[in-house]
Amino acid sequence: MSQTSLHEFADLLSGVQRVLIVSHVDPDGDTIGSALGLAWALRKRGLVANLACQDSLPDEVGFLPGVEAFRSDGPADEQLVIAVDASDLRRMGRLYAEGGLGPRPLVVIDHHETNRGYGDLNLIADTPATALLMLEVVDSLGVPLDATIATCLLTGIITDTQGFRTSNTTPQALAAAQRLMEAGAPLAQINQWVFSRRAAATLPLWGAALTNAALTEGVLWVELPFELLRRNGADGKTSSGLVTFLNTVREAQAAVILADQGDGIIDVSLRSKPGVDVAAVALALGGGGHPQAAGCQVAGEISEVRQRVLAAVRAAVARAG
Amino acid sequence: MSQTSLHEFADLLSGVQRVLIVSHVDPDGDTIGSALGLAWALRKRGLVANLACQDSLPDEVGFLPGVEAFRSDGPADEQLVIAVDASDLRRMGRLYAEGGLGPRPLVVIDHHETNRGYGDLNLIADTPATALLMLEVVDSLGVPLDATIATCLLTGIITDTQGFRTSNTTPQALAAAQRLMEAGAPLAQINQWVFSRRAAATLPLWGAALTNAALTEGVLWVELPFELLRRNGADGKTSSGLVTFLNTVREAQAAVILADQGDGIIDVSLRSKPGVDVAAVALALGGGGHPQAAGCQVAGEISEVRQRVLAAVRAAVARAG
Repeated sequence: MSQTSLHEFADLLSGVQRVLIVSHVDPDGDTIGSALGLAWALRKRGLVANLACQDSLPDEVGFLPGVEAFRSDGPADEQLVIAVDASDLRRMGRLYAEGGLGPRPLVVIDHHETNRGYGDLNLIADTPATALLMLEVVDSLGVPLDATIATCLLTGIITDTQGFRTSNTTPQALAAAQRLMEAGAPLAQINQWVFSRRAAATLPLWGAALTNAALTEGVLWVELPFELLRRNGADGKTSSGLVTFLNTVREAQAAVILADQGDGIIDVSLRSKPGVDVAAVALALGGGGHPQAAGCQVAGEISEVRQRVLAAVRAAVARAG
Repeated sequence: MSQTSLHEFADLLSGVQRVLIVSHVDPDGDTIGSALGLAWALRKRGLVANLACQDSLPDEVGFLPGVEAFRSDGPADEQLVIAVDASDLRRMGRLYAEGGLGPRPLVVIDHHETNRGYGDLNLIADTPATALLMLEVVDSLGVPLDATIATCLLTGIITDTQGFRTSNTTPQALAAAQRLMEAGAPLAQINQWVFSRRAAATLPLWGAALTNAALTEGVLWVELPFELLRRNGADGKTSSGLVTFLNTVREAQAAVILADQGDGIIDVSLRSKPGVDVAAVALALGGGGHPQAAGCQVAGEISEVRQRVLAAVRAAVARAG
C-alpha cells in the first residue's frame, strides 16, 4: 500500500467522528477480525466505530473482543463507511443493495487480487490476509498495538492462511504474527478457536465419507448422498473441512466432494495440490475460486455430474503432469 | 543458551576435522532437520560432518537435502560426537549401547526440559524445537544461512510445533521461521511434505474409527480392534494422526485411542486441550509424554483397559474443571 493512500485515509478520518465498518456476507475470521481490529484502533483515537455485517457471525469468531456489537443494517448517522475484505460492492449484501450507502464516502480495505477499487479511497494490496493490511493501517494511524487489537488481527491472519499453511503465506505474515503475539495475542488459543470447531455430530458423516472415498488417477473423491447429509445436519462447512482433509492424503493430486442437495443440484467442492488448477475446472462449470480451492453447483443427475466433474479434474491433474 | 557454551562449542570444533552427528531413535523431522542443518553449516566451515541414526528415516523427511547420507552405525574415525534432540543417552539406541561412543567428547544439543545434560558440553534450552537452538548455533558459528540449511531447520520447527499450533509456540519460533523463509526455505512445500503424508490406504481405518468414536463426559474415544488394524496395515503413526484429529473436535476436552495389538497389549494414545493433563494419566499407567500428547501400553483385556483408561482421563478432564 502506498504511503499516500495511508495519509489520505488519516486525513479522511480527521474530518469525521463516526464511522461504520462493514464486513462481507458469509463472514469469516479475516473480515471480522480485521474490522474489529480497526474498530478498536479508531476508538483509541477517540472516534465512534460501529460494525455491520448482513449475515450472522460464525462460531469461530464468537470469542473475539467486541464481536457482539455487529449489527445487520447499513449506515445511519455515520459519516464514513469502510468496507473490509470485500472484493466488490455486492460482497456487502443488502447493506449496499437496499438504499445503498448514501452520499457518505466509502473506503475499501481489501487484499483480493480481483478488487478493482470501487471506493472513494482504496487501500488494496495483494497480501495473504486483509488483517496484514489492517496492521499497516493501524501502524500508520500511530495507534500502539494492544492485546485486543492484536487478537483480532492475528485471528484474521490465522484464518486466511489456514495457520500459515496456504501457499501464499509470506515471511511478512510470519513477522506480523510475531509482533501480534508479542503484543498479547494468544496464538495457541486462537488456533484452538479457529481450528477445533468441528462438531462431534459430524463424525458419522466423516466416517461414511472416508470409508467410501475412492482414488482414481490422482483424484480422491467421494459422493455424499442427500439422505446422509440430511440425517447428519450437514452444512457447507462440513464439505469444506472434509475436502480439505482429503486433499492432505499423500496420493491425492486433487480432492472432490459431490454433495447431493436433493433438489437436482449437486454441490461440488474442489481442492488440489499446488500445480493443479481446480479454479479453471470450477469456472468452466459455472463456479469459481482459487487455484487450490474452488467450487461450483451443477444441476443434473448425480451419476452424470460425477462423470463430468471427475473427467475435468482428472484432465487438470494430467495437465499439471 | 549461554554465550559461554556457544563459544566452548566453537572452540571444540576448531580442534577437530571430522564429526558425527547423531539423531534419536524413531526419528522425526526435528531431530533429522536439526542434524542436517548443523551438518551443512559445519561443511561450510570445512569440516567433514557425518550423520547417523539407529532407525530408518520416515517418509516425511525423505525430501531433505542430504538425507540419504544417514548411516545406522556409531562413530568410526570421527573425533567428536554431537547428539541432536536426544533427551538422554538411551535415545541414541544401539549407537550408544553397542560399544558406546568411545573416548571422544560428546556434545548434546537439545530442547527437552527433562534433559539433564549428559554430554561433555551441553547446549540445552527449553524451546519449542531443537531446530530453534540449532539456528542459534549456526549463527554463533558465523555461517550465513542458505536455502539448504534453512529448509532443514524450518522442517524441524514445523514438525515440532505442528505448524505453529502447539501451545508452546513462541514469537521467537515465528521470527526464526520468517528468517528461514527469507533465506530460501519453501514453507508451503515443507508444510505439504510434513502434513500431507497420510496414505490413501489408511482411509478405511479412519472411516471406521470416526464412525465408531464416542463422546463421554468430554472424552472422545474409540477402540481399534486388532483385526481392523491388521487388515489396514496400520502402524503407530496412524493412531497418532487419528487421535490428534479427534482432539480437534469442539466438544472433546481429551481424545483417546485404544489400539488392540493382538498380543494382550493395548496401545493407548492420548491427546487433550490445554488445561487437561494427559501426561499424568499416561505416567500413572506406565507411559509418559507431554501434558497435551501422551501415551502408554497397558496389558490386559481390552474392556478392562478401556474402563481404567477412560476413568483416568475423565478424572483429568474433571480436575481441569
